Amino acid sequence: MVQYMSPLDSAFSALSDPTRRAILERLGCGSATISELAEPTGMSLTGLKKHVQILEQAGLVTTEKRGRTRHCRLGPKRLEDAADWLEGYRRSWADRFDRMEDVIERKRGSR
Amino acid sequence: MVQYMSPLDSAFSALSDPTRRAILERLGCGSATISELAEPTGMSLTGLKKHVQILEQAGLVTTEKRGRTRHCRLGPKRLEDAADWLEGYRRSWADRFDRMEDVIERKRGSR
Repeated sequence: MVQYMSPLDSAFSALSDPTRRAILERLGCGSATISELAEPTGMSLTGLKKHVQILEQAGLVTTEKRGRTRHCRLGPKRLEDAADWLEGYRRSWADRFDRMEDVIERKRGSR
Repeated sequence: MVQYMSPLDSAFSALSDPTRRAILERLGCGSATISELAEPTGMSLTGLKKHVQILEQAGLVTTEKRGRTRHCRLGPKRLEDAADWLEGYRRSWADRFDRMEDVIERKRGSR
């Protein structure tokens, strides 16, 4: 079954794995080859490549083959949508607490 | 295979589905029963319950059975970890651009 994933679904799904978050953090410091990315994880190149593919499908990583080496760098998507969703969610929470405080304040005032 | 998921993994994984994000947004306005959550989605109660379970495992939702009705509300986890990770990632990006701007500025100055 091919399931449609929105960009936001793909972004959060890509972030749900510690190896993939580590790859993004590493690529934030500059581009790297698959071997360079695999080295600190102790993971096989095949295993690492699968994670890179998921990040690539989410637009978070771009890869380019030069000779026999695949070079990876951060892609066009900058996780703004994911950060915006979380920010909106936090803001609605804060608003709710503000409203609750208003109600408490009014109840105090009417005593 | 039982796979260990860190709280950060579970949070991002829980957020990777539009129905689950909609449940969180709805519960941000106040508690609701499974039927009330299912209604706007057109989803079966069984389908909806599965999503609620995933959110419950991630600590994002708490449920309580009263008689024959299950009531849901936001749980103890407030997605701070997920927001913090994204914020840290964005900050490291911003720092990198600042450093790049410094380099460009210095190159301009030495012309």
